[in-house]
Parts: sequence; structure tokens; C-alpha cells
Amino acid sequence: VRIAELSRRSGVPVATIKYYLRERLLPPGVHTHRNQVDYNDGHVTRLRLIKALMDIGGLSTSATSELLAVLDSADLDAWESVGKAQYAVSKRRAAPTSETIDAAAGQTVDALLARRGWQIHPDSPARRMLIDACAALHQLGHDDIVAALDDYADAIEPIAAIDINLVIDQTTIAAMTEKVIIGTILGDNLLSALRQLAQENASRPLLQHSPQKNTKPKRADTGSL
Amino acid sequence: VRIAELSRRSGVPVATIKYYLRERLLPPGVHTHRNQVDYNDGHVTRLRLIKALMDIGGLSTSATSELLAVLDSADLDAWESVGKAQYAVSKRRAAPTSETIDAAAGQTVDALLARRGWQIHPDSPARRMLIDACAALHQLGHDDIVAALDDYADAIEPIAAIDINLVIDQTTIAAMTEKVIIGTILGDNLLSALRQLAQENASRPLLQHSPQKNTKPKRADTGSL
Repeated sequence: VRIAELSRRSGVPVATIKYYLRERLLPPGVHTHRNQVDYNDGHVTRLRLIKALMDIGGLSTSATSELLAVLDSADLDAWESVGKAQYAVSKRRAAPTSETIDAAAGQTVDALLARRGWQIHPDSPARRMLIDACAALHQLGHDDIVAALDDYADAIEPIAAIDINLVIDQTTIAAMTEKVIIGTILGDNLLSALRQLAQENASRPLLQHSPQKNTKPKRADTGSL
Repeated sequence: VRIAELSRRSGVPVATIKYYLRERLLPPGVHTHRNQVDYNDGHVTRLRLIKALMDIGGLSTSATSELLAVLDSADLDAWESVGKAQYAVSKRRAAPTSETIDAAAGQTVDALLARRGWQIHPDSPARRMLIDACAALHQLGHDDIVAALDDYADAIEPIAAIDINLVIDQTTIAAMTEKVIIGTILGDNLLSALRQLAQENASRPLLQHSPQKNTKPKRADTGSL
């Protein structure tokens, strides 16, 4: 199909498609004998993937480009690709490595990993991401959230087990790699939404039946309005 | 303290502080009799919060501004504030409401909510976020992830219970509201990191012992190198 039809089918404007082609996020079309450029179903699929990673996952163009490169080289490197995709996906949220690691938060995280017996590479971007989150929480005075780390880790293991099962059910390395990328990025959105829905449901009885805790109920407010 | 000292203590450059003052993310300092402007510990705390929301949470200036407004009005509206903060936090990731909702994904999500008996307001931004994620997953051919929604929902309930306990342990509405904001935004990072660490740990034995599944093992590769 031609670029206008590609735009219609993928829901991505022509100008944006041209930008993705220049940035090599999208492979070039095939030149036909009529001096036209032809695109196929692979292009439609790829455009939908780019759209999902950027619009829903909130990834930058360069982060998307890096992930697609991992995906495109997937069937060459066997199982390594799956781990590589996992690291590439984690990195999108980790702070630049030039910034110093908070030593106390590093100890908190490494003690957690040791307590759980989790075997993690020291360069794991997820380890770095957790250290940064703990350091920020401590600095903001939310040490109670850091203290709940073990409880959160207990609760997260069944989720990781579901993730892993979805990945190993795939029959090719390329499909596994794509499942890791999509499952982590769109999966984070899905889990964040489920978490907030479960919170809303669980807090509803509290909101309805709890006594007014504040000292300035609206009704008694005789101030300016 | 003066603005230079505020910058040193918070780790935020003076120019950025001035930008936050203009955008009203940061309340103005107090003019002293010596014609200087004085900032206090409250400004340091607020700057660290802004930094965490933007740098770690990845929030935009306008999203940060909206959350801080909810936070600043927190002790006026009693329990409503807590729910308001929850909705404001969710909205940061939901697609603009002008875009049409995918009807099939909407049915999938509402059927899930009905099966679980979760009481959710139809305008809940988290419901919208889940619908968008499911629609994208379906379009990308990852219906197996959508099919795991019930399993993920089972696994998320203990996490929401930890969240709620951290919130109700607070003694003021303002503290609860801040816990909701920080717990959701930095909590999403913390949970995403834990999920990836649990995945890495669980997939290590697979990576070490599984047979090579690909058709081009590296060792047999006699191509260019």
C-alpha cells in the first residue's frame, strides 16, 4: 500500500510516518516499478507498536528506537536477547549513570536482595531504579514506604511469575523479546491502573464511614466565599 | 535563607528555582527589611518534592502543578482530598478524553470490574487507563496479556492493601493526600523496579539451563566477525 493508506490503517499522520522513516524507527518501503513506494502489513504492525510505546508507555523517540533495535536483532542472539530487552526496558526510567548513587539507599536495596536471595547483576538498571526511588522517598520523609519494601516484594513475586509464564509460552525468541518489551511497558500501565482501581474499591468504605478527621469542615467555614 | 543557599540545599539550580517561582509551583519567599527575599525549610521540602515528581515520576510541569494544587488545598476538603489526589495522579497517564474509547476493551474492563465486584466510578481515570492499555494490547496482538487480567487483579489486591494501610496510618488529611501522591507516583517506580528484579531472579535458571531455542546459535555462526 502507499503511504496515505498506511497512515489511514495505522492511525499515524503521514508527516509522523515520514519522521519515523528518517529516524529509522520504521524500515523503508519497497520501490515498485511504477516509481512508487510500497508498504506492507509489517509496517502497519510496526507503526502500532511505536504508537503504543510512545503514546501509552510515554517513551521518548530515542528510547523507542533503542528497544526496536533490540527487537530487530532478537532472533540472532538466542536467550541473550530476552535479557537484553529486559535491561533496555528498565533503563528508560533509571537516572543517568553519571549521577552518584545514594549509599544508604544502595545498602537498603542490597540488603533486601540478600534477604530474598534474589540473584541480580550489580549493573541491573532495575536495581539502580529501585535505589533512586528509595533515596527520593527517604529524602521526602516517606521512610514508611521504604519500610514496606519487603511486603511489596512478597506481593510482587506472583506478578513476576505471571509475566514469566507469558514469556516462556512464546515459541520464538523474537516473540519472547517482544513479550518482554510490551509486557513490561504496557504491563506497567496495566498494573498501575489495576492498583489504583483496587485502591479506589478498597478505600470506598473508608471514605463513606470514617469520621471527619479534619479540623476545618466545610460546613462550619464562615470565611470568604 | 537566600536563593543561592536554597539552591545548594535542594540541589536545584537557581534558574530552575526562578522558573518554579514564576510558574507558581513554589510559593514566593518573604521580603525581609533588608530588601532581600528569604526562603525557609518549607521551600527546601517543596523543591525536593517537585524534583522527585518530575525527575523520578517523569511528570510534566503542568501535571506537577496540578498535583501540588491538590496537595495545597488538602486540609480544607476532608476525605474528599484523598480521593481527589488519587484521581489527579491517575490522570497523568490517561489519554486525552477527547479520543474515543475502544468499545471492546471497555467491555473487557467493565466485565472484569463486575466479576471482582469492584465499585469504581465510571469517570475514574484509572478505568480509562486500563481500557486504553487493553485496547493497545489487543491491537498489537497481545491478547494473552489481556487474558491474564484476572490473575494480575488477584495479585494486585495485596499491593493495594499495603498502600491503603500506609495512607490511613497518617494523622492528618494533608499527610494522607501527600502519601497518595508520593505512594502512587514513586510507588509505581518502586513496584516496576521490584517486578523487573523478581523477573530477573526468576528467569535466571531458565536462561542458564534451557536448550538453545533459536536456529542460529552464535557458536555455529561462521559469518563476519
